[in-house]
Amino acid sequence: MVKQKDIEYMRRAIELAEQGAGFVNPNPMVGAVIVKGGRVIGEGWHERYGEWHAERNALKNCTEDARGATMYVTLEPCCHYGKTPPCTEAIIEHGIERVFVGMPDPNPLVAGKGLSLLREAGIEVVCGVEEEAIREQNKIFLKYIATRRPWVILKTAMTLDGKIATWSGDSRWITGTEARAYVHELRHRLMAVMIGIGTAVADDPLLNCRIEGRGVRQPIRVIVDSNARLGLDSQIVKTAGKYHTIVAHTRFAAEERLEALKQAGVETLLCEEKEGLVDVDNLLFLLGQMGVDSILLEGGGGLNYSFLAGGFTDEVYSFIAPKIVGGEKAKTPVEGVGIEKMADAVTLERTDVLCLGQDILVKLKVKN
Amino acid sequence: MVKQKDIEYMRRAIELAEQGAGFVNPNPMVGAVIVKGGRVIGEGWHERYGEWHAERNALKNCTEDARGATMYVTLEPCCHYGKTPPCTEAIIEHGIERVFVGMPDPNPLVAGKGLSLLREAGIEVVCGVEEEAIREQNKIFLKYIATRRPWVILKTAMTLDGKIATWSGDSRWITGTEARAYVHELRHRLMAVMIGIGTAVADDPLLNCRIEGRGVRQPIRVIVDSNARLGLDSQIVKTAGKYHTIVAHTRFAAEERLEALKQAGVETLLCEEKEGLVDVDNLLFLLGQMGVDSILLEGGGGLNYSFLAGGFTDEVYSFIAPKIVGGEKAKTPVEGVGIEKMADAVTLERTDVLCLGQDILVKLKVKN
Repeated sequence: MVKQKDIEYMRRAIELAEQGAGFVNPNPMVGAVIVKGGRVIGEGWHERYGEWHAERNALKNCTEDARGATMYVTLEPCCHYGKTPPCTEAIIEHGIERVFVGMPDPNPLVAGKGLSLLREAGIEVVCGVEEEAIREQNKIFLKYIATRRPWVILKTAMTLDGKIATWSGDSRWITGTEARAYVHELRHRLMAVMIGIGTAVADDPLLNCRIEGRGVRQPIRVIVDSNARLGLDSQIVKTAGKYHTIVAHTRFAAEERLEALKQAGVETLLCEEKEGLVDVDNLLFLLGQMGVDSILLEGGGGLNYSFLAGGFTDEVYSFIAPKIVGGEKAKTPVEGVGIEKMADAVTLERTDVLCLGQDILVKLKVKN
Repeated sequence: MVKQKDIEYMRRAIELAEQGAGFVNPNPMVGAVIVKGGRVIGEGWHERYGEWHAERNALKNCTEDARGATMYVTLEPCCHYGKTPPCTEAIIEHGIERVFVGMPDPNPLVAGKGLSLLREAGIEVVCGVEEEAIREQNKIFLKYIATRRPWVILKTAMTLDGKIATWSGDSRWITGTEARAYVHELRHRLMAVMIGIGTAVADDPLLNCRIEGRGVRQPIRVIVDSNARLGLDSQIVKTAGKYHTIVAHTRFAAEERLEALKQAGVETLLCEEKEGLVDVDNLLFLLGQMGVDSILLEGGGGLNYSFLAGGFTDEVYSFIAPKIVGGEKAKTPVEGVGIEKMADAVTLERTDVLCLGQDILVKLKVKN
């Protein structure tokens, strides 16, 4: 029986898990709470990829003996030796009596084994508490573990009349400070940030994660650059020694250009080509193989269209600024050839609308 | 002293006033509540242009003698003979003892005279209750009475990637039923609806107000058509006998075309020209002189840009559908030449964000 109190402790565990966002990829975010005699005696979360799991951190943080206590953990405890020893072992050793598990391990090969081990040790186990919220929290992990392909969030920032720059190309700034800070939070949370070469040339961005006052994980910067045109004097190349940078190119890229990029510290990634350009499908496959579980796609319009038309986008985060610039020649967030009939539009499901300063952020899921 | 109870009765009067929306233009919406012994004994509102004012309707609806009662009325009662006799007279005759007035008459020539007349008759008068809400409710009236120019709401409906049609011109439908119903409500509320000739030719719209199950006021349809190109077989011209239709043109329009339009029941309006096109400033002046207090501007992008660049827009209502069509050639809500620097964008102040079905409506005020 799951009581209201149990749900509240699980929500606390979800809250704790959230603090691992950005640091644990491609692992899931996991949180754990240990309760004894109606009091929380230990809390923990998976803090960083390769480091201890939430269960061990919570046990380590216990202010008193955990014997006879109840543990709330958002994901089924692991029962194998990975980068750390199995958590089931620690739970059993510490004499935990009951374990509430948010959701089973999604890996079909191991799912349920952790639960069985605990039960065999005489521990009472309840699985499936606040599962929907935990699935949402770990949507990146759940897609990646099932498909080995990255979760893609297409992020756009446009004026109220659908422009990402004025006719002259000026785009600084469309959104205000709150919205831009939110984008940096996204860059921290997602493993990679991606742009097309057109945007790289037009905006010469740095594409790193800048958040004051706390530690962040810098995203891998991926430039889709079929012919390896990225300038050696661009901000991206100049900082390639500091931030992991990948130039995704086709076999049409000149060898000497690739060599120069490599010399500058850029990783070059040969992709299959499709009509002369990087095949996005193959690029996503390769990045997935490299361990990239998530990508923040930041334009431009041509690359965005390729992702949407190909069905490679999971979510769209659309920032809309209360400004109008007009201009029939001004660029828009999604371009390419485009869809012919309105009835055939890529449809999305709105999941959230936020007001960030004067800007609006609409979050949507793509119905692929 | 204004008590909480008084504020509540005034809010009820504001609510009643709202029912006159669309029917009373270019008059203000006004509501009135009569209270005696702590009970509401009469309610009324200004229902239709030229008909009785809120105060007289409330007195007429009283379920008992109003002698000694308190009246709450959103706008200062009139004290002159217009289309109906002065309301101050009726209030005094009925023996009302106290009057709470939302806001004074904005016409500087008469403001305060109604209040003075009531006070001279020994009635206790309090003015300025919920004034901000009443000013917002009557923003159209307040602009019109002060400037004799119409309040302009620019309405756009676009996809999440800023398109008002696909590259092939298909635009049916961008938004869902709730959003489209909202637009018909706007057409009822505003005295005129306006489009450019490009949109008239591309979409061949009817531009009337279609709301099932209740009476509506049909807006005047204004087509900005510098050279009077509007086709005689268009839906607009074919229904010109039924719905008041104005073609705004310049002196460059051919006389025979204007004659044919007139024959079909269209009113032709000669406007000054600016670079060969209808001068929007002059058009708004002329419509204001004709008694048009409000316009719903429904595109296209060129006309929208003229309005925004000229500073003739008061509000923007932006409907955003969760769809993406892409297309570098697809049309956007505001086009024209456009503004060169993002820092010089027309800036707006967000006043509301509504979710209408899957669509979003952002309401904004233009900072001219």
